[in-house]
Amino acid sequence: MTDEDRGSGFMPGGRASLPPASGGPLAGLTFAAKDLYDVAGHPTTYGNPDWARTHPAAVATAPAVLALAEAGARFLGKTKTVELAFGLTGENVWYGTPVNPAVPDRFPGGSSCGSASVVARGEADIALGSDTGGSVRIPASYCGIYGIRPSWGSVSLVGARPLAPSYDTAGWFAARASVLRLAGEVLLPEGGEAPLGPVIRVQEAWMNAQPAVAAALIPAMEAVEKVLGPALQLSLVPETLLELYEHFRAVQSEEAWATLGAWVAETNPQFGPGVGERFAMARAMDPAKARAGRAFRQHFRQRLMGLLGGGAVLIYPTSPLIAPKLGASAAEQLWVREVTLGVTAIAGMGGLCEVSIPAATVEDAPVGLSLVAAPGRDRALLALAEQVAERMGLPL
Amino acid sequence: MTDEDRGSGFMPGGRASLPPASGGPLAGLTFAAKDLYDVAGHPTTYGNPDWARTHPAAVATAPAVLALAEAGARFLGKTKTVELAFGLTGENVWYGTPVNPAVPDRFPGGSSCGSASVVARGEADIALGSDTGGSVRIPASYCGIYGIRPSWGSVSLVGARPLAPSYDTAGWFAARASVLRLAGEVLLPEGGEAPLGPVIRVQEAWMNAQPAVAAALIPAMEAVEKVLGPALQLSLVPETLLELYEHFRAVQSEEAWATLGAWVAETNPQFGPGVGERFAMARAMDPAKARAGRAFRQHFRQRLMGLLGGGAVLIYPTSPLIAPKLGASAAEQLWVREVTLGVTAIAGMGGLCEVSIPAATVEDAPVGLSLVAAPGRDRALLALAEQVAERMGLPL
Repeated sequence: MTDEDRGSGFMPGGRASLPPASGGPLAGLTFAAKDLYDVAGHPTTYGNPDWARTHPAAVATAPAVLALAEAGARFLGKTKTVELAFGLTGENVWYGTPVNPAVPDRFPGGSSCGSASVVARGEADIALGSDTGGSVRIPASYCGIYGIRPSWGSVSLVGARPLAPSYDTAGWFAARASVLRLAGEVLLPEGGEAPLGPVIRVQEAWMNAQPAVAAALIPAMEAVEKVLGPALQLSLVPETLLELYEHFRAVQSEEAWATLGAWVAETNPQFGPGVGERFAMARAMDPAKARAGRAFRQHFRQRLMGLLGGGAVLIYPTSPLIAPKLGASAAEQLWVREVTLGVTAIAGMGGLCEVSIPAATVEDAPVGLSLVAAPGRDRALLALAEQVAERMGLPL
Repeated sequence: MTDEDRGSGFMPGGRASLPPASGGPLAGLTFAAKDLYDVAGHPTTYGNPDWARTHPAAVATAPAVLALAEAGARFLGKTKTVELAFGLTGENVWYGTPVNPAVPDRFPGGSSCGSASVVARGEADIALGSDTGGSVRIPASYCGIYGIRPSWGSVSLVGARPLAPSYDTAGWFAARASVLRLAGEVLLPEGGEAPLGPVIRVQEAWMNAQPAVAAALIPAMEAVEKVLGPALQLSLVPETLLELYEHFRAVQSEEAWATLGAWVAETNPQFGPGVGERFAMARAMDPAKARAGRAFRQHFRQRLMGLLGGGAVLIYPTSPLIAPKLGASAAEQLWVREVTLGVTAIAGMGGLCEVSIPAATVEDAPVGLSLVAAPGRDRALLALAEQVAERMGLPL
């Protein structure tokens, strides 16, 4: 494998094509898909050579991939993923970690690292990812592009490998807000277009962010206020982000082991740094904690629906930190993971939709600003992101 | 007029009856109505002898009064009101200020002072009031009973004298939560019964309350949390309560003068302390300020709908203070009015429904805790108040 292959977002040998549609709303655009979506006739590696070795090539193409192709976008191929989508830095020791073109000495973010990288490099207009705990939102923030975690259940994950099904969502990236929205018009169900507002700052998530990150996002926050009016300020109070993280992790771990544990136990696959440890922790998850996590999640969802069901929008930094440096220690990576998941778990636990807007840079590294809305409001949220981008003077 | 007449909540000579209905949901209950509702054959004094003198007796009975009678409640008569419903202390120098039975050396609150007083004394089970700027909520808080300001437009004000129509609402009192709800089932339109939640503490309103009031309400707040789950904490941030008060006052003043100014100018009526001054200020209101107030209100409503449309409930002290002492200076009364209207204007500006629960006492004087919901959620709000009362161990 060449250095170029190692740094590319595309899978080595992952270039592929699909029958082109003539015309359609995405005509003239290109797209790629994370290598956990099936494309008929191609292997789905799920980021791990042992997975690839133990699974046959796909016989059908995932509906989300087909939908983009049928809407006129030209398919370019598969993109790299963190092994079994279980990691947020974007590292892949087997196929190479995709370059973060905005800050090449830092991680691209993951698990949808390849999809973020190819969009950030301008190699594709749209790239499908998937987001369980932040796997679209974090690389979008790190690479300085748009990313959406749609409402849970709103976009088909048929033909996509699961990690923790009650959190798994499809998601996608684009370098421009209008393109992010166009893809949504193809992928999302009809409806949910009623305008959103007011905007609510979630105090805990702003406090949790690195001060430089929070400060850098203020102008973008003001652009949002120009669109939606002055922000209210909310504190979740009883739910600390740490508690959210713990409950999220308990449920995710139990599900990840239920979903992939049999294969891991049977195959005893080789894993890159961190991945095996995460599966070991998933295997050891106390069922009582997972049960408590599910009970918490049910109440949290009800509360969030009551808060956001009228159209209110949460706003906070997508990630509390800029991308960690390549070569960050395992301890630093674990810390980053914990403080990050506490924020990304808000939408994860709530089943909410979230769009990350490339809003600022800190030390030349991008940071995203997230707008978060009630389940089913994805289309309005994408329209709002486009309005905000316009206010910010970003290219549409 | 005897001392007993002066201290009664009933109008002197205001006892009246209506044809009783047999059975009905309110059978066995009694009710009274603020003397701004018409009852056929009786004068409607609107709290002022010159008004009584210059207006003929009513020829029809107000639909809200009829509805309660037709539901089986026995009508006892008219209750005192602050002159032209324009005041919050409950003083009426012409017919006498009704006693606040909970703290006889303090004001009963107004303008629906008589209705609050007769319910608090156990002389009627239900009493109709009206609420423009707090005229049901404040006397409910001061007298230690339940009161509701329903969603604007939800209960008929036909046959009721107006003050500031874009804020005027009917409203009613009861000493028990179940009775407050029963009256609502008769008066309110169908619907709006979907459960409410989560509960949101409005920081500004808690900060605005006298510390002893806020502290005394904590156990009641915890009872609400037992029903609706832990409270979120929200700051309105850009809208200070002072700003709310100013905008509320501008619109209310302009409307009050438009509604009653011609009569005031033509009749040059005798007014008790404060009332004439308020009309003079209303007359002098700058139209530009009223215009700005209406624009603000429109945005504020949109924002509140977005925040509460999913079912969230605001919670805060109904009044920042206990009832002022009888004989409080004009300056003190004006100050009380300003800090009080800043809070009551939240529901007023928002068109929201609000229930005040008799939740605690400070120096033996009652204070109410308010639950506030989106327009149209009145029935769910009344059911919630009953649940909370049960949790608090109050008689249902």
